Amino acid sequence: MPNLPSPETPAARIMAGIPAINSSLYWRIRFSVGDPVALVELPGNGSPRQSVLILRDIEMGRARRKARADRVACPADYPPEGGLSGDRETATAQAAAECLRRAGVARVVADRTLPLIFAELIRRAGIDVACDLEMGVLERRSKDQEEIAHLRESQRITEGAMKLACELVASAEAGKDGVLLSGGEPLTSQRVRAAIDHWLMDRGYANPPTIVAGGPQGADCHDHGSGELRTGQPVIIDIFPRSRETYYNGDCTRTVVHGDVPEEIARMHAVVRKAKAAAIAAVRAGVTGEAIHAATTAAVIAGGYATGLPDENAPDSYCALTHGTGHGVGLDVHEPPLLDVKGPELLVGDVLTVEPGLYSKALGGVRVEDMIVVTKDGCENLNCLHEGLNWK
Amino acid sequence: MPNLPSPETPAARIMAGIPAINSSLYWRIRFSVGDPVALVELPGNGSPRQSVLILRDIEMGRARRKARADRVACPADYPPEGGLSGDRETATAQAAAECLRRAGVARVVADRTLPLIFAELIRRAGIDVACDLEMGVLERRSKDQEEIAHLRESQRITEGAMKLACELVASAEAGKDGVLLSGGEPLTSQRVRAAIDHWLMDRGYANPPTIVAGGPQGADCHDHGSGELRTGQPVIIDIFPRSRETYYNGDCTRTVVHGDVPEEIARMHAVVRKAKAAAIAAVRAGVTGEAIHAATTAAVIAGGYATGLPDENAPDSYCALTHGTGHGVGLDVHEPPLLDVKGPELLVGDVLTVEPGLYSKALGGVRVEDMIVVTKDGCENLNCLHEGLNWK
Repeated sequence: MPNLPSPETPAARIMAGIPAINSSLYWRIRFSVGDPVALVELPGNGSPRQSVLILRDIEMGRARRKARADRVACPADYPPEGGLSGDRETATAQAAAECLRRAGVARVVADRTLPLIFAELIRRAGIDVACDLEMGVLERRSKDQEEIAHLRESQRITEGAMKLACELVASAEAGKDGVLLSGGEPLTSQRVRAAIDHWLMDRGYANPPTIVAGGPQGADCHDHGSGELRTGQPVIIDIFPRSRETYYNGDCTRTVVHGDVPEEIARMHAVVRKAKAAAIAAVRAGVTGEAIHAATTAAVIAGGYATGLPDENAPDSYCALTHGTGHGVGLDVHEPPLLDVKGPELLVGDVLTVEPGLYSKALGGVRVEDMIVVTKDGCENLNCLHEGLNWK
Repeated sequence: MPNLPSPETPAARIMAGIPAINSSLYWRIRFSVGDPVALVELPGNGSPRQSVLILRDIEMGRARRKARADRVACPADYPPEGGLSGDRETATAQAAAECLRRAGVARVVADRTLPLIFAELIRRAGIDVACDLEMGVLERRSKDQEEIAHLRESQRITEGAMKLACELVASAEAGKDGVLLSGGEPLTSQRVRAAIDHWLMDRGYANPPTIVAGGPQGADCHDHGSGELRTGQPVIIDIFPRSRETYYNGDCTRTVVHGDVPEEIARMHAVVRKAKAAAIAAVRAGVTGEAIHAATTAAVIAGGYATGLPDENAPDSYCALTHGTGHGVGLDVHEPPLLDVKGPELLVGDVLTVEPGLYSKALGGVRVEDMIVVTKDGCENLNCLHEGLNWK
């Protein structure tokens, strides 16, 4: 069990790491930098904790203007006996330990993300380190109005990129062999991805590799897709860019078919839409992620499809929902809670993806994904884009 | 002091986190994914350790084909008593602990990057966790031939972007007020950055915000720069993109002046070049990063400039080297060792930036940066681009 101070004793706290990749730390200090930093919160005597942000000397001016911290310092302000290491991360951890030691702290509580080097060097300074697995987790889940505005804007831009991509596929010409042509050249997953990337870049978004998976490639829900796209096949497009200004993510999936839609794909798509609607209808604060996923799987099974990853002996005709219903989204594109087996109770302000999909080894995949905000009585859907297969 | 098993007893080891952002973990398994994973290495009886990579079920197929691990599993293969959590990171940590417990491990050694949640849940399973601060650090520093080839290629592409950017500035027209114009519109830091970003994207590189800082903005060595660029001012351009295929970084800085070069900027530039040459001449395996930095500062002081951040009372004419000489570069754009005070002995295969700069509050900054590979007797410079101020 966690070794936590009693609620009466305000304990010192620590978070540390690289804010550009540790979103919990960024969320606390609202300051991004690509080098290690430590945030030490010292207990006040009956007053609120005083926070000290320790980071590289050349970042101190910018941090004083922008970071959420009572005081900004650099490792050289807290050299331990024997001096600071010449390694930047080690020196930051040494300084954090020395800062705690000088304040007479005997025990500090850390969040789950703390890199072990910080715990190790604090312990070597004779200070006990306890891990609070919940610290920051619920706080990050319940988005405030400003965060929801950022997510709404990121999703709006993501939908713009999605419209561009789906229309690019739908408006291509089909060559004799069924390969799609755009501007006289074969339209590949790579070309669609590049069009999305440039469009998003011009709007201030960094974009990890988009999924543009045509036909059987879409059967593996995380295959990014490559090569020529074809008419009469489902093409799954999943875009999850991050704003370079706010750092909040969009996340949207649509499936587009060029030309005639095969009957089986239309059937899969109808069931996916029903599953998504069932999941969204079940969402409100207090309901569990597990219950939402159960609503999804019930609709999938009622539609005549299976759930679960195919085993080695599954026939090519095996067609199933192979993943959970969705996940939290915010500063990280995947964050708690999960809409899946054992998913926890939803909170007001949870922002979630709802993204059921059906995957057939023979035909490929169909997935549709929206982003929603949990409210007391239901949810708000941040998407406006239609969810059909036809984008012409 | 670290609580390590004796060398005779091969201990179990663990690394964990998100490979897409934990480069030490990626380096070990050579498999990128955006969700938490754990790599458990179980001691063999006289035989090498057997590694088990635990990750999301839908990633297992891809991991079996690509990851460096003896075995691939998912959390459901290692449910603890009481079952797995519905939270993905917690479940991964529970499974890692259970995997160690089933193997009868009493003590496991972790590297410095381990998120504290993994240490906490392993300890709750009755297993001792020791932190080896050096685990993986030296191994990652000494790049092998394949890694050097990746870095050489990333630097080649970075130089291509740099040439484009410097020529864009140099070939602009100066309006009556000195503001640069390109295509009839003011040439801003943002426009230069966008040109770099699109060019790099087409070549498969993700690019964090490039520094394009003109005039006094360049006086803060980490100011990214914004707004109109002007003739007769130094413009610092620092580009550090990452290959989306190999994940290795380029890192290059040049300074460009449009039109006539002010005398003082020419003087600063000559000293920066001398400092860079002195640093590079001092590099070979066994020399310390501190000694390299001393060569840089000696050249700066001999050139008549100061070192160190300006204090509050420094006059506008204060002009100094305000940072270290350089840093290691690889899968992370900043990684050990530092070429700075207390920088450690260099190793064959260390890949380093050498990037002295001089910063004047009144005039702006001048910085030039190359990437080098440390050899037994000296170093190889991976740059080919000229280092002058004139790019017309």
